Amino acid sequence: MLNFDFYAPARIIFGKDTQQKIGEVLKPHAKKVLLHYGGGSIKKSGLFDQVVASLNEHGIAYVELGGVQPNPRLSLVHEGIRLAKQEQVNLILAVGGGSVIDSAKAIAMGVHLDHDVWDVYEKQLPIEKALPVAIVLTIPAAGSESSGDTVITNEEKSLKYGYGSNKLRPLISIMNPELFFTLPKNQIANGVADMMSHVFERYFTNTTHTDLTDGLCETVLRTIMLNGPKVLANPQDYDAWAEIGFSGTVAHNGLVGMGREQDWACHNMEHELSAIYDVAHGAGLAVLTPAWMRYVYKDNIDMFVQFAVNIMGVQMSYRDKDALVLEGIARLEAFFRRMGLPQTLRELGIDDTRLKEMAKKATSIAFGEEYPLGNLKKLAWQDVVNIYQMCK
Amino acid sequence: MLNFDFYAPARIIFGKDTQQKIGEVLKPHAKKVLLHYGGGSIKKSGLFDQVVASLNEHGIAYVELGGVQPNPRLSLVHEGIRLAKQEQVNLILAVGGGSVIDSAKAIAMGVHLDHDVWDVYEKQLPIEKALPVAIVLTIPAAGSESSGDTVITNEEKSLKYGYGSNKLRPLISIMNPELFFTLPKNQIANGVADMMSHVFERYFTNTTHTDLTDGLCETVLRTIMLNGPKVLANPQDYDAWAEIGFSGTVAHNGLVGMGREQDWACHNMEHELSAIYDVAHGAGLAVLTPAWMRYVYKDNIDMFVQFAVNIMGVQMSYRDKDALVLEGIARLEAFFRRMGLPQTLRELGIDDTRLKEMAKKATSIAFGEEYPLGNLKKLAWQDVVNIYQMCK
Repeated sequence: MLNFDFYAPARIIFGKDTQQKIGEVLKPHAKKVLLHYGGGSIKKSGLFDQVVASLNEHGIAYVELGGVQPNPRLSLVHEGIRLAKQEQVNLILAVGGGSVIDSAKAIAMGVHLDHDVWDVYEKQLPIEKALPVAIVLTIPAAGSESSGDTVITNEEKSLKYGYGSNKLRPLISIMNPELFFTLPKNQIANGVADMMSHVFERYFTNTTHTDLTDGLCETVLRTIMLNGPKVLANPQDYDAWAEIGFSGTVAHNGLVGMGREQDWACHNMEHELSAIYDVAHGAGLAVLTPAWMRYVYKDNIDMFVQFAVNIMGVQMSYRDKDALVLEGIARLEAFFRRMGLPQTLRELGIDDTRLKEMAKKATSIAFGEEYPLGNLKKLAWQDVVNIYQMCK
Repeated sequence: MLNFDFYAPARIIFGKDTQQKIGEVLKPHAKKVLLHYGGGSIKKSGLFDQVVASLNEHGIAYVELGGVQPNPRLSLVHEGIRLAKQEQVNLILAVGGGSVIDSAKAIAMGVHLDHDVWDVYEKQLPIEKALPVAIVLTIPAAGSESSGDTVITNEEKSLKYGYGSNKLRPLISIMNPELFFTLPKNQIANGVADMMSHVFERYFTNTTHTDLTDGLCETVLRTIMLNGPKVLANPQDYDAWAEIGFSGTVAHNGLVGMGREQDWACHNMEHELSAIYDVAHGAGLAVLTPAWMRYVYKDNIDMFVQFAVNIMGVQMSYRDKDALVLEGIARLEAFFRRMGLPQTLRELGIDDTRLKEMAKKATSIAFGEEYPLGNLKKLAWQDVVNIYQMCK
């Protein structure tokens, strides 16, 4: 186990009707909030009105900024920063999924900067402070409701960069699984793939003496794989959604990766797909992850044996480790297929014309020095091309 | 799954040499601290000098108060409150195990009260605020390094009461497994039994749809049972201690019990043993827990089948659930025996003269109205006597 520093201060208020508490729980923290949201489905569903009623009841003023798109855009972040400064809000309230939350975090730090917030993403600059962020979650997937992470797309440069800081950890996140009942099936599936990837990125490691976090990762993954098909079959299944929602938070609040060298190659490879082709993040991950596994597993076959046995339920045997691992990966693919997720780049609408360009961006060699991806196996840009090719 | 409110803000700084960071991490939070500790072993080991050197280096003043005993006493808490007020400290720094931390929390809330802090324990009064508490942990067991809980013994009244509040959640806890190397074997075993009980109290429930937290509980318990014998055999085994230490925190920071009705009958029954006979908390739990299991399991046999299979490794079969459960309990007893823990009240030096008195105190009927213990099965005072009798 490696030394670690664990900090996940977000208060998670979970369960039925909890969105009606938003005004009450924000009262000690905010006089005026920027109410940030996406395409307006929260207005149709009545959630917007519930949130506003609760804010009004507790004397909290708000100014609204909707329009966050999947793969949230820098231009709207700029607008949010301008609005938050002008209106002197003291908290950003994100009502939405990961994209809205990531955009809210960008605004929260941007109001305190005297330079473009994009510099923070591009140059990975440390930040001193940020406005507090609170959340009413409508899509469980990104784990952004407890993490200090944010991913923003610079649409002018076709770049999608992530950034993380403990200063961006949300203050309070409200999660009512009933709010997930209206999600379309493809968003359900994408969310499941995304939260599974958050665990995989932490699970696959060369670090040893990781009994506790191995088990925590495996439990979260088994729970997601048990309940994902249930919510896909019946999006009104509260109990299954409760498991998925809670799992999505635990998958990405940091705990299950503590003391482990983490990987994150798949996420970095996927960001290139999303930046250029605007594909759904989870769908991209579902395509890339099994290919990545086949490409790297021989570098730490015992880690993948454990994956196959403890997560995918393959009967343990040390007679033919390769076959055992490949069976585990095949079962993962079958699970993704059962969830209706794509299996190939072609299904994502991506041909092979820009694979090298994406691989060079992913490894930064396009901008100068090469930074190989991942840790279980270090991937140079040619490796990334190979993995993309395996997904055609 | 039940609605829940999860809040575990303590920053956990974990690993080798981390105690040397104490001054650096406290710098933004404190000018003068009350340095609270136990019997003085931290002075012999050199830890006291390391902590003081780090405080000095970062310009943090301190006043010291040692002498915390196991089952920490109200009288020393009173002295700490007086000292903290007089010296105008703005943080309590506990260097020790659960007893020192619990005492520190009592002092931290006591300085803001205009009445006796014991009233808070006895009448379960809400508190408005408390001084921040930071910790350098020397004994992993109580989980007090991340919880908002404290247990204090009123030695005049022979009462041991617990209290919990999010206001008492520690600010920062430093955990270096190397500091555990010098623990005597009985303290190791008691700590293991205590942290296992923290999970059992949350695990055994009648709540359904708890896939994620079932699995989290089972993982923590399996990790403790895998690594407990390792540290007992070799108290210098850093990697095994890292698993035990981290597990002790996860066992009691609240996460594994979220959304579940919890039990806590064993803890409440044990507190009576400790209050009168001053036995080690973990040792008392090791005696009571298997008896409690045998007494209550028929009320939710499937929960205990899952325990036997997923935690104790009994092969699943639905042919004879009683036999399967009893085998699981027998394996738990064998594990406690392997750890050198007592099996009977006699081994704890407790005869049967005061069993009824303890049972009546545990269920509060001694003070008026009866409050049955536990939730999986509600235990009246006669039930508690029966369980004590099973442990003779």
